[in-house]
Amino acid sequence: MANVATKVSWSGREREVEGQGETTPLLNGTASPSKPRQLTPSSSSTRLGHLSDVYLDEDSELELDAPCSLPHEIPHNEKLLSLKYESLDYDNCENQLFLEEERRNHTAFRTVEIRRWVICALIGIFTGLVACFIDILVECLAGLKYKVVKGNIDRLTEKGSLSFALLLWAALNAGVVMVGSLIVAFIEPVAAGSGIPQIKCYLNGVKVPHVVRLKTLVIKVCGVILSVVGGLAVGKEGPMIHSGAVIAAGISQGRSTSLKRDFKIFEYFRRDTEKRDFVSAGAAAGVSAAFGAPVGGVLFSLEEGASFWNQFLTWRIFFASMISTFTLNSILSIYHGNPWDLSSPGLINFGRFDSEKMGYTIQEIPIFILMGVVGGILGAVFNALNYWLTMFRIRYIHRPCLQVLEAMLVGAVTAAVGFVMIYSSQDCQPLQGNRVTYPLQLFCADGEYNSMATAFFNTPEKSVVSLFHDPPGTYNPMTLGMFTLAYFFLACWTYGLTVSAGVFIPSLLIGAAWGRLFGISLSYTSGWIWADPGKYALMGAAAQLGGIVRMTLSLTVIMMEATGNVTYGFPIMLVLMTAKIVGDYFVEGLYDMHIQLQSVPFLHWEAPVTSHSLTAREVMSTPVTCLRRVEKVGTIVDILSDTSSNHNGFPVVESVPDAKQTLGLRGLILRSQLIVLLKHKVFVERTSLSLVHRRLKLKDFRDAYPRFPPIQSIHVSQDERECMMDLTEFMNPSPYTVPQEASLPRVFKLFRALGLRHLVVVDNQNQVVGLVTRKDLARYRMGKEGLEELSLAQT
Amino acid sequence: MANVATKVSWSGREREVEGQGETTPLLNGTASPSKPRQLTPSSSSTRLGHLSDVYLDEDSELELDAPCSLPHEIPHNEKLLSLKYESLDYDNCENQLFLEEERRNHTAFRTVEIRRWVICALIGIFTGLVACFIDILVECLAGLKYKVVKGNIDRLTEKGSLSFALLLWAALNAGVVMVGSLIVAFIEPVAAGSGIPQIKCYLNGVKVPHVVRLKTLVIKVCGVILSVVGGLAVGKEGPMIHSGAVIAAGISQGRSTSLKRDFKIFEYFRRDTEKRDFVSAGAAAGVSAAFGAPVGGVLFSLEEGASFWNQFLTWRIFFASMISTFTLNSILSIYHGNPWDLSSPGLINFGRFDSEKMGYTIQEIPIFILMGVVGGILGAVFNALNYWLTMFRIRYIHRPCLQVLEAMLVGAVTAAVGFVMIYSSQDCQPLQGNRVTYPLQLFCADGEYNSMATAFFNTPEKSVVSLFHDPPGTYNPMTLGMFTLAYFFLACWTYGLTVSAGVFIPSLLIGAAWGRLFGISLSYTSGWIWADPGKYALMGAAAQLGGIVRMTLSLTVIMMEATGNVTYGFPIMLVLMTAKIVGDYFVEGLYDMHIQLQSVPFLHWEAPVTSHSLTAREVMSTPVTCLRRVEKVGTIVDILSDTSSNHNGFPVVESVPDAKQTLGLRGLILRSQLIVLLKHKVFVERTSLSLVHRRLKLKDFRDAYPRFPPIQSIHVSQDERECMMDLTEFMNPSPYTVPQEASLPRVFKLFRALGLRHLVVVDNQNQVVGLVTRKDLARYRMGKEGLEELSLAQT
Repeated sequence: MANVATKVSWSGREREVEGQGETTPLLNGTASPSKPRQLTPSSSSTRLGHLSDVYLDEDSELELDAPCSLPHEIPHNEKLLSLKYESLDYDNCENQLFLEEERRNHTAFRTVEIRRWVICALIGIFTGLVACFIDILVECLAGLKYKVVKGNIDRLTEKGSLSFALLLWAALNAGVVMVGSLIVAFIEPVAAGSGIPQIKCYLNGVKVPHVVRLKTLVIKVCGVILSVVGGLAVGKEGPMIHSGAVIAAGISQGRSTSLKRDFKIFEYFRRDTEKRDFVSAGAAAGVSAAFGAPVGGVLFSLEEGASFWNQFLTWRIFFASMISTFTLNSILSIYHGNPWDLSSPGLINFGRFDSEKMGYTIQEIPIFILMGVVGGILGAVFNALNYWLTMFRIRYIHRPCLQVLEAMLVGAVTAAVGFVMIYSSQDCQPLQGNRVTYPLQLFCADGEYNSMATAFFNTPEKSVVSLFHDPPGTYNPMTLGMFTLAYFFLACWTYGLTVSAGVFIPSLLIGAAWGRLFGISLSYTSGWIWADPGKYALMGAAAQLGGIVRMTLSLTVIMMEATGNVTYGFPIMLVLMTAKIVGDYFVEGLYDMHIQLQSVPFLHWEAPVTSHSLTAREVMSTPVTCLRRVEKVGTIVDILSDTSSNHNGFPVVESVPDAKQTLGLRGLILRSQLIVLLKHKVFVERTSLSLVHRRLKLKDFRDAYPRFPPIQSIHVSQDERECMMDLTEFMNPSPYTVPQEASLPRVFKLFRALGLRHLVVVDNQNQVVGLVTRKDLARYRMGKEGLEELSLAQT
Repeated sequence: MANVATKVSWSGREREVEGQGETTPLLNGTASPSKPRQLTPSSSSTRLGHLSDVYLDEDSELELDAPCSLPHEIPHNEKLLSLKYESLDYDNCENQLFLEEERRNHTAFRTVEIRRWVICALIGIFTGLVACFIDILVECLAGLKYKVVKGNIDRLTEKGSLSFALLLWAALNAGVVMVGSLIVAFIEPVAAGSGIPQIKCYLNGVKVPHVVRLKTLVIKVCGVILSVVGGLAVGKEGPMIHSGAVIAAGISQGRSTSLKRDFKIFEYFRRDTEKRDFVSAGAAAGVSAAFGAPVGGVLFSLEEGASFWNQFLTWRIFFASMISTFTLNSILSIYHGNPWDLSSPGLINFGRFDSEKMGYTIQEIPIFILMGVVGGILGAVFNALNYWLTMFRIRYIHRPCLQVLEAMLVGAVTAAVGFVMIYSSQDCQPLQGNRVTYPLQLFCADGEYNSMATAFFNTPEKSVVSLFHDPPGTYNPMTLGMFTLAYFFLACWTYGLTVSAGVFIPSLLIGAAWGRLFGISLSYTSGWIWADPGKYALMGAAAQLGGIVRMTLSLTVIMMEATGNVTYGFPIMLVLMTAKIVGDYFVEGLYDMHIQLQSVPFLHWEAPVTSHSLTAREVMSTPVTCLRRVEKVGTIVDILSDTSSNHNGFPVVESVPDAKQTLGLRGLILRSQLIVLLKHKVFVERTSLSLVHRRLKLKDFRDAYPRFPPIQSIHVSQDERECMMDLTEFMNPSPYTVPQEASLPRVFKLFRALGLRHLVVVDNQNQVVGLVTRKDLARYRMGKEGLEELSLAQT
């Protein structure tokens, strides 16, 4: 299994290999001054033996969009860990340059702090604007589409040639979806799906290639508009989270590498630590704009990303969230013609539940728990089906053109299913006022409309709200049952297509439908008048969504904020908790499942409970390539160019004065830093030992961040190879270390809590014996039969 | 300043010295096998030089309630750090015993997990019950009191001898307050105040003596009932947080040391890590019961306590919060006679704001910000006044009898002020329905009541709700102004008295009063009809509370949940943020101020921004007392008995094989562990080197937790002194270390994120050079003129 070396990207198509593992061979024993030595590989290094023969022709931080031919079938296995994902580094490199910069007076820090707040405000404003843009465009385009289709159906019903209407509808859907799918598949595959798994990974510390680029944002926004207009069973809320994150990453860096524009602002924030903090704020602002849930947004960010809770950071995230929902609210209120009203805090609003009328009583609590169980089971079925589908897609549908075709097929089938269900439905309801936007008369009597059609002839958001609030009797049970069934399979098929789309709204819609059905059945069987179907629709929606995504605290708060009151807080929590417990019994949550299928080295909250028997010695990577404090340029270039061991962090060692045999750890230097040093030729003549080149500043490192050039692009002459490089000033002089005896949970806790990328394992004399990186920890997972170890592969 | 050695406890009276600093002298250089050696004190050790001559006659974890005579005036200074507070240890000691226990199968861990949930449910239920108890008793007793006073006033108004009524009222108040103050001052001084600063400290990792004891809970509950009934300007909400924390600590340990009952359950949780997690849940449950704000409770716990956010923990905390508010809601609903209604989620409910009528518009936002500014300034004034008052109290009112007298005085004055204000008020309002519980006619016409009297003749909770919801015109501006002024000073005087009482409600009340006044003025001056006084009362309340306590995210959510809708989320956030920024410009928040006045080594979120120039070498304590892996019993007893250096953690060292001069770090052992070892006489005969006593188990350590016996109580014979003790099995073999060169922020981050108690500083060869403990980090603070260093003192 360890030598399965395939390439699968988020969208099922490989676009680039950006970043290999962070392992590094060991330097030990006696020393010649300029060449790194290799220890005989220990038992754990045999695990990495397969690395030498796999696809490794691109550098770790190299930008290359080389197209490569793909096989027809890609074997895949979920028990793999990909080596292609790099880690973010939340640990500030406290080298001399950094310390010099930090030794400023108090005022300078206040300026930095104010800038942070300004950036958060900008993140909120832009996220809100993007959300408005999506909302308004979807409303216009979808309205146009429904009007055309409805007009044709109305016209053709009389003529009896309804199949033309079906064809028109299906063709319209497929066409729109095709465009949406084309841009995603061919321009930016990472924009596919909701983006939530990708953002989860980013916040977890995994560098997902291209995930926070401007291009991704543009494709994401256009893609989601086209998917929703194309009538797929998708929502526009999930992608907002990804959009917010991209906006945050862009604004906080004060430049766009894609547009080659550098505004020369916010340069201080050009490092992983700061960028990740802002991305948290962006994700929160996205949730906030999507659901009108600023607190839920903060909790989402924290639940998915935070390793170290910091009050100031949280408060800034909250500020960005508030600004985001406020911006959206103001603009949509103006758009809807009541500028002072502020009644649209999110892309979806669940509408006002009248809590006077719709309180709940203690007797209903067991019923809510039962609904949670149902939601958990249905969610597990959804996830299991989607799992098989995704495996199928990874294996067979990895060509972009196939992906586009599949998306078009789903678009057409969605229209066809809708049409057949509307056609065969006998649920006619009297028209009252203008509650229904596109009432479809079809075969109903005059003054009546087809109730099934309202569910399909609407954006999913509006259908959800109708299910929550329409008075009892609006839908007959048969309609709801059929709709649930059809939509369940459609949504399941749709998630994972190469289109930008969220799964929140389809889940809510499925749940609302069966929840309402549940409520109606209750009032039929028991005659309980309090069984308001709207309330049960809400609980069903919570149960279904909880069963699928398994989010906990944040989802409760999002649901509470989206309903606009806190009365239902307790039952929603009960339902979500039950759904999670029941669902977890069968399969993982949808996002976690997809993360695992992509073989991402994702670090969970805690090390597996039974892993105390493992020590750092057993989990670390070894041998490690170490460097001297003053190292020969040629050696460094050779190490960096060595494609068989693509390391990103190198411990810096030095012999101890009174024990010549011992090489004590002195610091840690990153590949990216070495590359900047080589590029600026910070060499010392071997003879003179004096600095011949200008002094580097932190700015030089920041300018290169985050796309450091590959080593191949740096030319080092033969003379220069003989020079020395003094790393003292640039290395991190106090990297975190653990002793060999530390248990895995202990190592894990340190690594996770501080957001590290490299953790040096030392022996009793402070000699480097190994290096722990993300994949060394992510490899151990709790399986059904206890602890299991994933294989590493260059997928 | 360093030799100021005074003793000040939370209540201004010293009851015990529990726990000294965690510093330890250094072992270095060549070694004799059984005695620790001292390095010549380095520059930083001179800072600790004053320690030898201060009051140190009690052991670190010793239980002794020795009464001691107190001087008449205690000099005090806020730039001190007390050495009497121990630290909690969030770092699991992963010794061999622990690892053996953890090497169980998966099922055992599931059982532990289920137990955790059961405990959280129990915490929720009991916290809810305690809240009900307080609420019902306060309602009954206060009702009785108001009835008696009102009866007398009504009767005596006719006779014209109202001074008797005043006397009766004042006497009643003073009497009740006296009882409440007596029990606090003489039985458990730590139960004074709201308990929030103490819980903040506990969650931060400071062990505040007696803070989570059963006795404290009993005194707290009785005290708060008596304070509220005694008519003081206090609330019953703050103390709920403390109560919840005590309940959590008690339940999670499955025993009560005070009652000498051990239920032999939950033994696994008898360590700081687990206990602190449950205390977080208890505090959250307390907030939840107090304000009906489960999410706010979770956020409060996280904002004040969490160092490492863990999803599972958060979800459990949320569960406890939900159960707590649900329990309270069910029981109060039954008590109020509508069992299925569930309309009392908290001790205080702000009542339903009709958001249809009371939405806000964009034009109001600058007004809200202005209110935030006012709140920030008034909050700063409040805090500054309270600061001087507290300093005065620490210096002069440190005898319990004086404290009781002061409390009685405040009780009587509160009644007198109320009486005078009611007497002089001309604000008569027509009686409508039974909106007013105790309408006082006084000099008003028949069918009218005195409006000022409603504000004083009510528990503060009810007054707040009246100010929020009474229709415009109920209060005239003069009444509100006078009331604000009087209540402001009363509340300020009251906070810090030796009674159990919260500051939340008085703050809200002050704010609601001036907020309403503000709203009325607005509608007078501008004629804006939308200036609903209730809405402005709410914003004023938020501003005032924010200006005083400076809580951020959690307070926003608590206010949102207490109002029951999310419409006001954005303005409340704006108001709170403005109040915080403005307030912080002048003085600290009330809780932080009191924490600082008590010289607690509290760790803030981040190290001071300008502290990058300091390194571990400069901040660490040195010399350190080290132990050998196999150490002579006599040596250990001597070290532990040494009252001049009351250390709690000892690095364990061993000489390195190929460098005899070097003593490498091997582990860390705690005083408490050594004491258990000595107690169980886990000695090895010097001759045989075989174990002669039974093997110790983790249970032995857990049974002794948390009140480990003092070293004086353990008898070690002269023969036994010659035995050896093998620490290998019991020490933590992989303590966290930092190199000497690490900067203070780096050390701080590691220490804070992992919740450490001891952090070993090592040199390049892994030799111990110092130890960083909480006080070494808490000592550096950001002052007005940059970084300042606090002095350490045995206060």
